[in-house]
Amino acid sequence: MRSYYCGQLRASHIGETVTLYGWVDRRRDHGYVIFVDLRDRSGTVQIVSDPERTPGSYQHAGDLRNEYVIKIVGRVTKRPDESLNSKIATGEIEIYADEIEILNAVRKQLPFQVSMSDNETVREDLRLKYRYLDLRRERMSRNLQLRHQVTKSIRRYLEDAEGFIEVETPILTRSTPEGARDYLVPSRVNPGEWFALPQSPQLFKQILMVSGFDRYYQIARCFRDEDLRADRQPEFTQLDMEMSFMSQEEIIQLNEGLVSHIFKTIKGVEIPTPFPQLTYAEAMDRYGSDKPDTRYGLELVDVSDILKNSGFKVFADSVAKGGIVKILPIPGGNDAVSNVRIKPGGDLFKEAAEAGARGLAYIRVREDGEIDTIGAIKDNLTDEQKQELLSRTGAKPGHLLLFGAGDTITVNKTLDRLRQALARELGLIDPDKTNLLWVTDFPMFEWNADEKRLEALHHPFTAPKPEEAHDLKTAHAQAYDLVFNGFEVGGGSVRIYQSDLQAKVFETIGLSIEEAHNKFGFLLEAFEYGTPPHGGIAYGLDRWVMLLAGEESIRDAIAFPKTQQARCLLTNAPSSVDDKQLKELYVTSTHKPKPGAS
Amino acid sequence: MRSYYCGQLRASHIGETVTLYGWVDRRRDHGYVIFVDLRDRSGTVQIVSDPERTPGSYQHAGDLRNEYVIKIVGRVTKRPDESLNSKIATGEIEIYADEIEILNAVRKQLPFQVSMSDNETVREDLRLKYRYLDLRRERMSRNLQLRHQVTKSIRRYLEDAEGFIEVETPILTRSTPEGARDYLVPSRVNPGEWFALPQSPQLFKQILMVSGFDRYYQIARCFRDEDLRADRQPEFTQLDMEMSFMSQEEIIQLNEGLVSHIFKTIKGVEIPTPFPQLTYAEAMDRYGSDKPDTRYGLELVDVSDILKNSGFKVFADSVAKGGIVKILPIPGGNDAVSNVRIKPGGDLFKEAAEAGARGLAYIRVREDGEIDTIGAIKDNLTDEQKQELLSRTGAKPGHLLLFGAGDTITVNKTLDRLRQALARELGLIDPDKTNLLWVTDFPMFEWNADEKRLEALHHPFTAPKPEEAHDLKTAHAQAYDLVFNGFEVGGGSVRIYQSDLQAKVFETIGLSIEEAHNKFGFLLEAFEYGTPPHGGIAYGLDRWVMLLAGEESIRDAIAFPKTQQARCLLTNAPSSVDDKQLKELYVTSTHKPKPGAS
Repeated sequence: MRSYYCGQLRASHIGETVTLYGWVDRRRDHGYVIFVDLRDRSGTVQIVSDPERTPGSYQHAGDLRNEYVIKIVGRVTKRPDESLNSKIATGEIEIYADEIEILNAVRKQLPFQVSMSDNETVREDLRLKYRYLDLRRERMSRNLQLRHQVTKSIRRYLEDAEGFIEVETPILTRSTPEGARDYLVPSRVNPGEWFALPQSPQLFKQILMVSGFDRYYQIARCFRDEDLRADRQPEFTQLDMEMSFMSQEEIIQLNEGLVSHIFKTIKGVEIPTPFPQLTYAEAMDRYGSDKPDTRYGLELVDVSDILKNSGFKVFADSVAKGGIVKILPIPGGNDAVSNVRIKPGGDLFKEAAEAGARGLAYIRVREDGEIDTIGAIKDNLTDEQKQELLSRTGAKPGHLLLFGAGDTITVNKTLDRLRQALARELGLIDPDKTNLLWVTDFPMFEWNADEKRLEALHHPFTAPKPEEAHDLKTAHAQAYDLVFNGFEVGGGSVRIYQSDLQAKVFETIGLSIEEAHNKFGFLLEAFEYGTPPHGGIAYGLDRWVMLLAGEESIRDAIAFPKTQQARCLLTNAPSSVDDKQLKELYVTSTHKPKPGAS
Repeated sequence: MRSYYCGQLRASHIGETVTLYGWVDRRRDHGYVIFVDLRDRSGTVQIVSDPERTPGSYQHAGDLRNEYVIKIVGRVTKRPDESLNSKIATGEIEIYADEIEILNAVRKQLPFQVSMSDNETVREDLRLKYRYLDLRRERMSRNLQLRHQVTKSIRRYLEDAEGFIEVETPILTRSTPEGARDYLVPSRVNPGEWFALPQSPQLFKQILMVSGFDRYYQIARCFRDEDLRADRQPEFTQLDMEMSFMSQEEIIQLNEGLVSHIFKTIKGVEIPTPFPQLTYAEAMDRYGSDKPDTRYGLELVDVSDILKNSGFKVFADSVAKGGIVKILPIPGGNDAVSNVRIKPGGDLFKEAAEAGARGLAYIRVREDGEIDTIGAIKDNLTDEQKQELLSRTGAKPGHLLLFGAGDTITVNKTLDRLRQALARELGLIDPDKTNLLWVTDFPMFEWNADEKRLEALHHPFTAPKPEEAHDLKTAHAQAYDLVFNGFEVGGGSVRIYQSDLQAKVFETIGLSIEEAHNKFGFLLEAFEYGTPPHGGIAYGLDRWVMLLAGEESIRDAIAFPKTQQARCLLTNAPSSVDDKQLKELYVTSTHKPKPGAS
């Protein structure tokens, strides 16, 4: 049996005879002496074999190739001073291998180098196809171990400090009404009927509150058949929580305890509580985003009132039509950002255009205090207006002021993108900073222009603020998102628990009583039998791990992810299946492959 | 905020003013004084309201009905001596309710009583439809809390004592070759192709060993579209484990540590290790079963050699055709079991017939030592043969010997059923006994008469015993099942890790290289790149919890189970879906409802 993992060996083990198992990370043949880095999940340790001191292993040592699986028995020895290696944890020692046994060889050419000492960038499709090799590499091995630590710290905190109970909810269930497309599963036993994979355990966790479980959590698999974006997966994992008899502030406080615990356990960082809170309105106003990165300033300034009567029609019209004019003030932007970049064809112009803006007005404050701007502003602003703009935005020599004008949504989207791009470019983001922030007071509904109706911004079980419940259409929700360095990592709400209020919400989003009962009648029915006040939250675990690991793709936080084409390159799923299988399920594909395609 | 859960209050809290939340479990109106049992997940506590001592709450107390959700603020008070109740944990105290707030009422007739003090048997379909009420009842609340404790104790043991890493494996994947039918999921993005829900994470966990994770576990959801039996569910949960560089005995030893820990944590019982082991052959020989309940004796005795030349053709023919004659000796059976029950029409005859037996021969040993038996035996056995039967089976006055004769499988099945039925009837089973047992040395393959080929008894990745690997067809496997009081609760094996041996196994079960590569080529491919020796085990968590909770149905160990018709009565899943959804998925149902059916 194994005595230690490779990475555990230290100077304190010198003199011990140990049995180790692992993979040949690298073999270095120094003519006479053979060095092998032996690797397992804990790290590497140096194995030494030479004909004189370890005659029993020398021949096998010569046969070793990268990624062979071996067992060694050897003596832990102090390294000679000249080969001490302070870069690795086992760098003070090496193992004289008395026995080497080859447990399994490598019989094919490796598609890429897997050595821990190798940082080669490998094409992602190769990494995913040979995931078993990719997961041997230091980066992915560390990411998955980190994921395990995150999950573990969550479970322990919720169980030990807060009395949460883990309950498993079904995967084969009925579609939940959360807007995205469902994955469907045909039922063989009930032909013509389908299960849906859950988009979240939302309804079940509310049912558990009705059942009196009081505090529920689950690390839950969820499914959404959406067109995939960079950080979306068809199946993903969320930390799902629900609790009874708690107000929004109490839920937030409990979650701050959880989140601080995760940071302390995983990163060794103390996060002060309470976390700052911004209302949705304030976040949109100051940052143009409901998930602002507040590690840096660059706050937006609303100047609609100054410019509503401006002779520059773009500004005046925007305000007249109910829109807005805002400024993104950039200290040092006068030097850093050339006009070429702001004008059509420039990168910042493109960034703005992708958000829907049609132009990018600006004011430069030269180092000598002089103002430089586009003609339309120069010609149409009074000196007083200019002075007011400068003073309200706090502009100083060296500032660049970028304008957004138009409908509020587009202006905010535009300036949010520019703000983020420029903060990165100007090095305003401290990567060591951890910024956690609640965004609260979301509107209950937003207008769905396609379907010409209001729809729930979170989901239709979200409770309005009690003092605004008399006018649901304009009410704000008892909803809260947690934002971590500009990423939404969690969101939740206090739920409606009164059936009459729930009925009014359905009415507001144009859902008839029949439709509502067809979709989730069981929850409405449950509300009749003594439902407690309750609320909850869900965190995207994959994204949390991605951020904590410092990765940029969610796929690097998942052991076996799908591609953006929703395929698993390792198993080659999805795949065609036997007609017999489909026949038994009473289903058939209606897809007609194009002629010539296979 | 809540001060305590109801069930936590004790005499030590006397004098405190507390805020409690919960459900009205029962209200007893003693004319003047109103008593309310307030219930939450922890238990109940008695609330008292009367016009004199608690004028502030008396009116609301009168409005309360069963299952109302309330908040109370009150003083913890010692109960008068005459109303102390030692049966409940809070029986020394009661709460004088200064305030009672009704948070939610019950607006419909309860479909059944949910009070903790009520043990009414409720129809299961009602329990499942109103699961939120059923889960409030003491039994299910306790079962799910037990489940949580089991899961928790498993995780902590594996993580803290054994260094296992939890890794999540996909739910949307490719079919695994484990014999049962797959649930399929049409892919919208890759039309005409299907995902399968995993029957187990088998292939992924082996891939994780190839990746070097060394020790993996997961509480994993698995799916089998089988025709349901009493304790089967379409989706079920297993504790899934895999480990590298360990022999069968080392794996067994580690698992005994885990299982003992569960029993100690959950039941406070010390289970001595090592657990007994029986080979498959021995278990079949002595108990007629590969999952024998060894809490009692009633061992079977093979008497083929004594009766092979008997004049009773049933016995002689059975042996001549390669079958067997066995006896189930029942001490006290002469008195306890009448001839009527053994003869056609009797309950034991039926039991035997259901196992495939065509008759049930017997010998009775009267209290005076005289032998009584059926004519065919009386006429055809020599005195010497009779004496040998009695001495080999250890028959004493009062014994009943039941015969099984025929092919080995039917004989074993018959006597196994009779053995279990009679043990229950005769009170031989000590319900407090915990019997854990490994069954080992399973054959590698069994004959599939329908497909006229050998098939893997466990699965085709199971390794043969090394010393028998030269003749795979007759080899025994490095496989092991854990049996708990006659239930198989877990099973696993050491896996094949050499690609040439794996190819031979596929050949033996008649799987061509092409088919094998089509089904799980990625695992075979992985074997080429340095796969470590590895093995694992999986436990049926639902069944574990069922047994630990003393339940007889697996549905009582699951929060939201499906019926035996694979339906969820709470959500009414599966259900029909919009044509639009199916169209987007490029699938259609081929089911033609019968005319007149809806």
